[in-house]
Amino acid sequence: MAASPAIPLITLLTDFGPADIFVGSMKGVILGINPEARIVDLTHEVPAHDIRSGAFLLYSAVRCFPPGAIHVAVVDPGVGSARLPLLVSTRSYHFLAPDNGLLSYILAEEQDAEIRELTAQKYFLASVGPTFHARDLFAPAAAWLSLGEPLDTFGALVKDAVQFEVKRPFIKDDKLIGEVQHIDRFGNLITNISHTELRDLVDMDNWLNLQVRIKKVMVKGLQRCYADAKPKKLAALVNSDGWLEIFCNQGRADKLAKAKLADRVEVLVPHVPSPPRRGRGRG
Amino acid sequence: MAASPAIPLITLLTDFGPADIFVGSMKGVILGINPEARIVDLTHEVPAHDIRSGAFLLYSAVRCFPPGAIHVAVVDPGVGSARLPLLVSTRSYHFLAPDNGLLSYILAEEQDAEIRELTAQKYFLASVGPTFHARDLFAPAAAWLSLGEPLDTFGALVKDAVQFEVKRPFIKDDKLIGEVQHIDRFGNLITNISHTELRDLVDMDNWLNLQVRIKKVMVKGLQRCYADAKPKKLAALVNSDGWLEIFCNQGRADKLAKAKLADRVEVLVPHVPSPPRRGRGRG
Amino acid sequence: MAASPAIPLITLLTDFGPADIFVGSMKGVILGINPEARIVDLTHEVPAHDIRSGAFLLYSAVRCFPPGAIHVAVVDPGVGSARLPLLVSTRSYHFLAPDNGLLSYILAEEQDAEIRELTAQKYFLASVGPTFHARDLFAPAAAWLSLGEPLDTFGALVKDAVQFEVKRPFIKDDKLIGEVQHIDRFGNLITNISHTELRDLVDMDNWLNLQVRIKKVMVKGLQRCYADAKPKKLAALVNSDGWLEIFCNQGRADKLAKAKLADRVEVLVPHVPSPPRRGRGRG
Repeated sequence: MAASPAIPLITLLTDFGPADIFVGSMKGVILGINPEARIVDLTHEVPAHDIRSGAFLLYSAVRCFPPGAIHVAVVDPGVGSARLPLLVSTRSYHFLAPDNGLLSYILAEEQDAEIRELTAQKYFLASVGPTFHARDLFAPAAAWLSLGEPLDTFGALVKDAVQFEVKRPFIKDDKLIGEVQHIDRFGNLITNISHTELRDLVDMDNWLNLQVRIKKVMVKGLQRCYADAKPKKLAALVNSDGWLEIFCNQGRADKLAKAKLADRVEVLVPHVPSPPRRGRGRG
Repeated sequence: MAASPAIPLITLLTDFGPADIFVGSMKGVILGINPEARIVDLTHEVPAHDIRSGAFLLYSAVRCFPPGAIHVAVVDPGVGSARLPLLVSTRSYHFLAPDNGLLSYILAEEQDAEIRELTAQKYFLASVGPTFHARDLFAPAAAWLSLGEPLDTFGALVKDAVQFEVKRPFIKDDKLIGEVQHIDRFGNLITNISHTELRDLVDMDNWLNLQVRIKKVMVKGLQRCYADAKPKKLAALVNSDGWLEIFCNQGRADKLAKAKLADRVEVLVPHVPSPPRRGRGRG
Repeated sequence: MAASPAIPLITLLTDFGPADIFVGSMKGVILGINPEARIVDLTHEVPAHDIRSGAFLLYSAVRCFPPGAIHVAVVDPGVGSARLPLLVSTRSYHFLAPDNGLLSYILAEEQDAEIRELTAQKYFLASVGPTFHARDLFAPAAAWLSLGEPLDTFGALVKDAVQFEVKRPFIKDDKLIGEVQHIDRFGNLITNISHTELRDLVDMDNWLNLQVRIKKVMVKGLQRCYADAKPKKLAALVNSDGWLEIFCNQGRADKLAKAKLADRVEVLVPHVPSPPRRGRGRG
């Protein structure tokens, strides 16, 4: 399981927004327990209560961090209810999060993760009410963990965690069918179609002939970078995380395409496809 | 007065917003003076010039920090005018803030706080104009303080600080009458009625029979957590800071109740009240 | 060129906004390379793709930092295209930025800056696509630089960098003519007219007689601080950075004046001007 980094590193991802002092309070608690902890904000503007968005953003961010980092993720409409608080340890990281699906993308890739229910009261803050587990439970547990407290003192292993299904693209009628899984600050539409799936479908040499459909617009070929596309038109590329992304040079693709989360995206196989490397069924 | 923490910890709370470089500039000044300082943002989205909001947020956040922390709070429409810059030291913390009421909640609980006027020019930055005391005066003073400069070198004690009245709930006609003192990012209405006042009014065993009125809506009973309430309805609980809070599971209480800051909130005493522990007058 | 600070200090300025994990990802990369790096956010809310705004904000912030600080600035609509990635070293600082004008204000004041094209692949992150140089190229280069890697290992010197013209005020018909170069969070209009230019025009003793025109409104005299002005009226002062600023006490000057970026601002010379210290042409 995850090794300790030279300097204890704790990241925070929440839907708490910037206007309240929720995040600042968490940091006060952490630094009161481990003054040496390095705290990094991933984002605090996950849409309120939007577990799926939070899960994708968490998954996208954590792989940039050195092994041993402790990731606290709290998008938690069920705070204080029967949903368990978890400590999940993967090969590279520790995660502290409510058991509500927020770790779905992580767990989909980490079959051997150790999942614990956080139960050790000694690591929790005393509190009047159960509405702020981020501060009273996840933050102090992260701080104690960063001090080297052994994993098994936090709680017993549990078998499973709540996971929503991470939607993968599929092939149907010679089309690769995925969806918009995130819209970023620039209005770019990040699909759930990865470069490996594109490569399975067609040689990279042939990517210029790919066609990507979003709503009723057909985009022809993949660009290398944003500036290579005609201004004010929808275009597509493979982004730095390896996702097929629909964008608009000097504009916003979400507005131009009137697209929203989970909208269908189709990739049409060019006429002379490369030999398929995996079997393709229908649907 | 406040001891020094192992690592010098400075927090910042302002109404500067995220789009400007005001906050980044303060951090540059602090780190230029004390490169070891740990700086934590409480929030920078206090509504512009809203001293009362800032005062409540500051008060709510600071108690999460270890003793010795230095809190810089700047919501300061009168910057550069006759209002004094202050250094206030309580049992646990130091505060650097303009003398305009921003420390009202803190001072209401700390009768023995030492209040100094910040006058020592040697700790200030030279500047062309007096519009940015956060950077030119409060930030460097905080940094020097974090290096261990003695309190009395910053300026002489003054008797008093500007304080607005912190509104407390009162009892009238068998009702406990308070108000909305903060609306958080999720639309939750945080009242100024604390769990101790509720407990004085009625045994916790009897909280299910409490009735809370906001505007024309009557909410019956207290929930334990958000998820325990019926979706899309107004409900109430005691939150992790001990405040009576009106919320809406899977919705926003502020929208649903059309509520705003300072709106009246009433708690109706159940029919079989517990014996009162304090005298109750009218009004 | 810039010396190393006691603690490696890296600042970030981008147009990435707070809702995505772009900035958190950059921090993960930096801390993976140099766990001791201190990272400070200048702002991440430069308007999307607005190189001119970013350039002004960067210029305004960096001078608050101690010498040796490494400033990473990314407003980069041309990411991945032919535009070069740069490492620019001035007397005080290092800058990592795309070659698109973002350093214009800096370079206008630093004729002897060393400008390098960032080419050393060994300092870059491997990545599928070229859409995120902030994370894959600028952040790791900054981290390696903060570890003391020699400047010349990052890439060869280049002669020039893209610079847009930094607009300076000029005198015409006895008026000093400038423009709004920034509107801050409070609606204050920061002009490109500096206190030195005002002083050249007229003795500070005579500033009360200055007249400042924005749109059709004439503002008389300079205030010392915001609170000195009549509420709800347009007024002017010299701010802490030395810029002539038009503001509205207890209001927003941008709304009141219906002003926007690049709007013309005129300073009218009082009737008894001080002897000019520089020659004045027409236009």
